[in-house]
Amino acid sequence: MGGCDVVELAETYGTPLFVMDKAQLNRNYEEFYTSLKSQEIDFEIYYSYKTNPVPGILRVLHEYGAGAEVISPYELWLALKLGVDPERIVYNGPNKGDEALRCAIERDIKLINVNSFNEIDKIENMARELQAKPRVGVRVSTSGGWSNQFGFGIKCGDAFKAFEKLSQTNSLQVVGIHVHLGSGIRNTAIYETATENIIDFMHVLKEKLNITVRYLDIGGGFGVPTVKSLSGVETRLHHDFFRPITPPDTRGAPSIELFIGKIVNKVRQKCDQYELHLPVLLVEPGRAMTSNAQILLSRIGDLKIYKNEYDIALTDAGINLTHPLSWEYHEIFAANKMNDECNQFYGIAGPICTPTDLFVKNKQLPSLEVGDILSIMDAGAYFTSFSTNFSFPRPAVLMVAEGKSWIIRQKEKYEDMTQLDGL
Amino acid sequence: MGGCDVVELAETYGTPLFVMDKAQLNRNYEEFYTSLKSQEIDFEIYYSYKTNPVPGILRVLHEYGAGAEVISPYELWLALKLGVDPERIVYNGPNKGDEALRCAIERDIKLINVNSFNEIDKIENMARELQAKPRVGVRVSTSGGWSNQFGFGIKCGDAFKAFEKLSQTNSLQVVGIHVHLGSGIRNTAIYETATENIIDFMHVLKEKLNITVRYLDIGGGFGVPTVKSLSGVETRLHHDFFRPITPPDTRGAPSIELFIGKIVNKVRQKCDQYELHLPVLLVEPGRAMTSNAQILLSRIGDLKIYKNEYDIALTDAGINLTHPLSWEYHEIFAANKMNDECNQFYGIAGPICTPTDLFVKNKQLPSLEVGDILSIMDAGAYFTSFSTNFSFPRPAVLMVAEGKSWIIRQKEKYEDMTQLDGL
Repeated sequence: MGGCDVVELAETYGTPLFVMDKAQLNRNYEEFYTSLKSQEIDFEIYYSYKTNPVPGILRVLHEYGAGAEVISPYELWLALKLGVDPERIVYNGPNKGDEALRCAIERDIKLINVNSFNEIDKIENMARELQAKPRVGVRVSTSGGWSNQFGFGIKCGDAFKAFEKLSQTNSLQVVGIHVHLGSGIRNTAIYETATENIIDFMHVLKEKLNITVRYLDIGGGFGVPTVKSLSGVETRLHHDFFRPITPPDTRGAPSIELFIGKIVNKVRQKCDQYELHLPVLLVEPGRAMTSNAQILLSRIGDLKIYKNEYDIALTDAGINLTHPLSWEYHEIFAANKMNDECNQFYGIAGPICTPTDLFVKNKQLPSLEVGDILSIMDAGAYFTSFSTNFSFPRPAVLMVAEGKSWIIRQKEKYEDMTQLDGL
Repeated sequence: MGGCDVVELAETYGTPLFVMDKAQLNRNYEEFYTSLKSQEIDFEIYYSYKTNPVPGILRVLHEYGAGAEVISPYELWLALKLGVDPERIVYNGPNKGDEALRCAIERDIKLINVNSFNEIDKIENMARELQAKPRVGVRVSTSGGWSNQFGFGIKCGDAFKAFEKLSQTNSLQVVGIHVHLGSGIRNTAIYETATENIIDFMHVLKEKLNITVRYLDIGGGFGVPTVKSLSGVETRLHHDFFRPITPPDTRGAPSIELFIGKIVNKVRQKCDQYELHLPVLLVEPGRAMTSNAQILLSRIGDLKIYKNEYDIALTDAGINLTHPLSWEYHEIFAANKMNDECNQFYGIAGPICTPTDLFVKNKQLPSLEVGDILSIMDAGAYFTSFSTNFSFPRPAVLMVAEGKSWIIRQKEKYEDMTQLDGL
């Protein structure tokens, strides 16, 4: 990985350990960039901070050219701290903080995507008070994808009411429409339907309110080939009946190029139909940008035979670090036995004293021994963000490139874990 | 709570906020102490650190007289740092670290409960090398309760083999037998059966290996009346079909006095039967000690009508802080509307941009407004330990007593969240 031997990295830096491959990060960014560039549409790429909010990773993505998609006051602070141009920050989120909204208005960030009527009132009042004219978008929900606490439904008329309300104020610039459809999406149809819904709606906005939407922010949610969300049935079969999980069909997830191609085709076709100006397309990838660039290394500290049926490998990374495995399939390799045949079944448990820390119930792996290194793949999305320090300090994050490795986040020391307790 | 108005506390200290009631902590400790004392058996009380590892809380429990039950190198470090007498530390856990085992041996802690044959070898080697004679117990699994990655089965013969192996070494003192049956257990039968299994087994150990077990460590797992684990069906009905969860029948969970009474009765009866010395009874409560003493306060920042069917209250505490609600029922009150009738249905969501942050799908509450304060009850077990800083800093922990309030853990600052990143 990045010209380094991961088993040596585990030896040198200790385990558990997150390792981020800079070259893969670059390839992922480039795939978005070239896919969008080749479509001859104006576009901007924003990285979803919550997916992997490690500053050392964010910095690299910003160097490549990505903006910041933030969902909290902390993330807005972090983007500004990292020197991101406010013009390259989009602020989403269902319950934005007053202080952060004020900051977003004062710093004149690219786009604040509003989520509710109350939020419109709040931003309007703040804008008037600050004598500013923030750019806002409206988060909508379409006939597929997330809704519930998010956005204004197009079908039920709320999205129209939101734009109507916004059009009656002089203190806001109504420039965008935003949707975020889901997480780990493995088909393009949901994006095409949403795009269709949205451009039909943009036509209505143009006709009835004379609003031209400049930014179409299609959000993120793009899945990756090697990770799949588990269905309820798969989860129960695995956790209650110890059935191994079938890996995803890697041909089942579209490439970034295909996602982008299908979305832009639909944008172009529908805008032609209604004679609308092509909007600037904003994308906010998270998983598709970082998931496959990072792994989580752990070491087997013990092996335990259970009821003579199967062995449990006890590692130093448990549910404190592997939370996404409770709803997703991730490949797991024995990093020091990559050429051995996977002919035995193992449970994989962490060091925490709870049965739920047997986070993989049954997985075919080579014959394992104490000291072996396991690598959980695609650990670059929602692993660091969902990490806890349940009984254990959080691990270091390493970056590797061209045979070199360097720490971008230090391992937590015990003293760090009590620093707010006045010990 | 503790003579303080929690709505005022939310106002003064901000939300989200954990509030711990010192008097309730004291009542809980006293309930264990007097229940055990009245049974006229030698006993020791250890608090399960992982349940709520806030030093300010641990300190208070140690002052009352509780020892430390630790499951990780960090927790062992913390107990020693807090000045706990090594004689009052028990080290459990399925995959103990080498460094921590060495420290436990050097500091001569009360008891190391071994979990596997490999661990026996490891401790034996270390003990020989350090010319020490550590006290060890054997973690067993009985015919009810947790097994999998934990302990040695009595029935399958592994527990006997472990004692046999231990009896052949001169470098270890074999003094204990340990079991931990589960979490949130709401009946006494499982403890009685386990006690029966264990004392039958102690009889075998006496007869066949001439081992007298001095410490019977029955672990924790004692449930509390107001929290219940959700069944798979309840979880699905709630999350997929928005059915409100039925609160637990508070008469359904035994009192601490009853748990202890039933266990000691069984110990006494079975020891009489086999003419065994009464062991010293060790208990390791976590939830039963702290759960009902702590609440989590949050503020409603927005209300969102969804499909005209029901409202979603958007609060500033989401799955970053409420993880236990994904497997447990907890009561939730509108703290500033305690006398209002609960005549409306709400979803409750946090500030995070994922549908899973709609962590309560349907709950009857009074008519809510922006600014209202929600209190999640029984938040003193597994809430701080499972907290993440997913997009948001972790909140302060407050202690209250006799009308006074003081911070025992500061709220994370943004700078704290990046301090290991070399910003």
